[in-house]
Amino acid sequence: MRHALILAGGRSTRLWPLARPKQFLPLAGDQSLLGATWDRLDGLVTLDQRWIVGGSAHRRACEAILGQLGSRFIAEPEGRNTAPAIGLGCVHLNAIDPDAVVAILPADHHVTEVDVFQRCLRLAFERAENEDCIVTLGIRPSHGATGYGYLRLAEAPGPEGAALSGFVEKPDADKAQTMVAWGDHLWNAGIFVARVARLLAEFETQMPETFAALESVAEHLGQPDAEQVLRACYSRCEATSIDYGVMEGASGLWCIPTSCGWSDLGSWTGLAELWPLDGQNNAINGDAQLQQSRGNVVYVAGGPPVAVRGVDDLVIVSTAEGVLVIPKDRCEEVRHLVAARQDP
Amino acid sequence: MRHALILAGGRSTRLWPLARPKQFLPLAGDQSLLGATWDRLDGLVTLDQRWIVGGSAHRRACEAILGQLGSRFIAEPEGRNTAPAIGLGCVHLNAIDPDAVVAILPADHHVTEVDVFQRCLRLAFERAENEDCIVTLGIRPSHGATGYGYLRLAEAPGPEGAALSGFVEKPDADKAQTMVAWGDHLWNAGIFVARVARLLAEFETQMPETFAALESVAEHLGQPDAEQVLRACYSRCEATSIDYGVMEGASGLWCIPTSCGWSDLGSWTGLAELWPLDGQNNAINGDAQLQQSRGNVVYVAGGPPVAVRGVDDLVIVSTAEGVLVIPKDRCEEVRHLVAARQDP
Repeated sequence: MRHALILAGGRSTRLWPLARPKQFLPLAGDQSLLGATWDRLDGLVTLDQRWIVGGSAHRRACEAILGQLGSRFIAEPEGRNTAPAIGLGCVHLNAIDPDAVVAILPADHHVTEVDVFQRCLRLAFERAENEDCIVTLGIRPSHGATGYGYLRLAEAPGPEGAALSGFVEKPDADKAQTMVAWGDHLWNAGIFVARVARLLAEFETQMPETFAALESVAEHLGQPDAEQVLRACYSRCEATSIDYGVMEGASGLWCIPTSCGWSDLGSWTGLAELWPLDGQNNAINGDAQLQQSRGNVVYVAGGPPVAVRGVDDLVIVSTAEGVLVIPKDRCEEVRHLVAARQDP
Repeated sequence: MRHALILAGGRSTRLWPLARPKQFLPLAGDQSLLGATWDRLDGLVTLDQRWIVGGSAHRRACEAILGQLGSRFIAEPEGRNTAPAIGLGCVHLNAIDPDAVVAILPADHHVTEVDVFQRCLRLAFERAENEDCIVTLGIRPSHGATGYGYLRLAEAPGPEGAALSGFVEKPDADKAQTMVAWGDHLWNAGIFVARVARLLAEFETQMPETFAALESVAEHLGQPDAEQVLRACYSRCEATSIDYGVMEGASGLWCIPTSCGWSDLGSWTGLAELWPLDGQNNAINGDAQLQQSRGNVVYVAGGPPVAVRGVDDLVIVSTAEGVLVIPKDRCEEVRHLVAARQDP
């Protein structure tokens, strides 16, 4: 059966001082990103086969958006990046449906062309079912973005996609330009479809210690000590991404290129691409007043109103959590500020 | 008798987004600027002869600092700059003490050398009493400030000061440097001492319409319609500064030079001169975290904490009122932001 596993454990550290992780906020339109991710599965995956992985602290926020989830909310005991989260989800799915095919989806991305997205995800399900391969969606790049990882195609794609020959980590600007010009590199959106059994086999081969820990979790599912075992075993899982831990070493990867208007909204400048510009190229969202200022990104929600004069190309954010001021071309460095706040 | 008239009606628009006018805040030490101004009169003017002029909305804030003021709080019906405020104060003083000598003092300045200040103010009282002249305090300049007006001496000052030959409006940087090098120009602190009768005579000569309005106010003091007459007459007073309206045209002005560590705290950079610098030349007051940033002025009080990375020479303020971002060398332009907020 077809399932979806939505990864809702992100902390949005690159968007500090957002009041809450971005999947819970309506940053693109009226709907939260999580709610939109959920609704994009309509017609592809039934409601009962949609699963959420996230920290237990996030259950309430998820259910406020999606309604009661019951056992469809799979709680991570701690955040350990995407590989353990996906492994944990696979353990749960495997226990109830050994023939499960699962689409892995980040909860906090934005898609403008929902029809295109759904057509591609349906293709991905079909290929994963028929060929037993891991099928990724590859986003046709609109520009040489340095904030994304890239997928490299092994051949020119046909109507059903192409084999994948490798992964490229976030490139510098020159390399990004070159890859986009070549035409055989696509943005890695972290969206993929595979049989759960196939994914667990990859864990066994490539992350054997993590797989052993997950096996212990599987053996105790439904037992009185399940939570205790989970907590102990999960801390033994390697805290790494699914790309680094599993995908880069897997064989038989397939890629379906798509132009579905995707963005990961992964930084303040990424988010600001959804906002209208004023006559001075400022992207403003909220109660802000700018004078003699150009090219700024200003976001105000829950914090005091912002007044700016005579500054260019800054990100300025005001929320109840804090006030951020950083140059636009350095907005990826917000995480250094967050790290310093957490470890003073 | 010696009196003091403290001008407490300032709105601190150059310090937006301060939550309250700066005279009511402890911006230099533990005490509010108004409280410190009041206490600097100890030994010079008895408590009963200290008067406050300000908007009626400020009475409560003044009394929270100074205790019950009763008739010693003189309420302006509206803010019309310093000339009408001082004229109104003189009308009240003249009614109760025709021989009054008054020291006019802004409520929101800072003085570090209180002994020096008191010695000079005592000298000023004595000269105003004995010579019937208007005696200003002139601050010996520490640098070529462009944010202050200047007093020009007619001669090299003796131990008791010198005659004043004129006023110079806020100069540009070159002119300020030249004036400081000459040594005969002093900062105008807006502090002066004179007989009330002498001041009212200057109003009569130089601001006849304002004087006529003030005379009507005087005639109705203590009458049932006093407040109604005040409101009607005050709106006829010319909304101008005491310097422009009276002092520049007055004769027989005297100046006592002083090095009393005075500052008007008239802008964010002026205020920041009282704060310690960190190793990167940032002046920080409040909960702020700066990385790879130099020469900034950051103030946080009542607003969200501030995190800054990779920016130089900015003023960044976070209060419950708002968030301000403006280059340090343009911080006088805050008033343009305030004006735009008031007249959108």
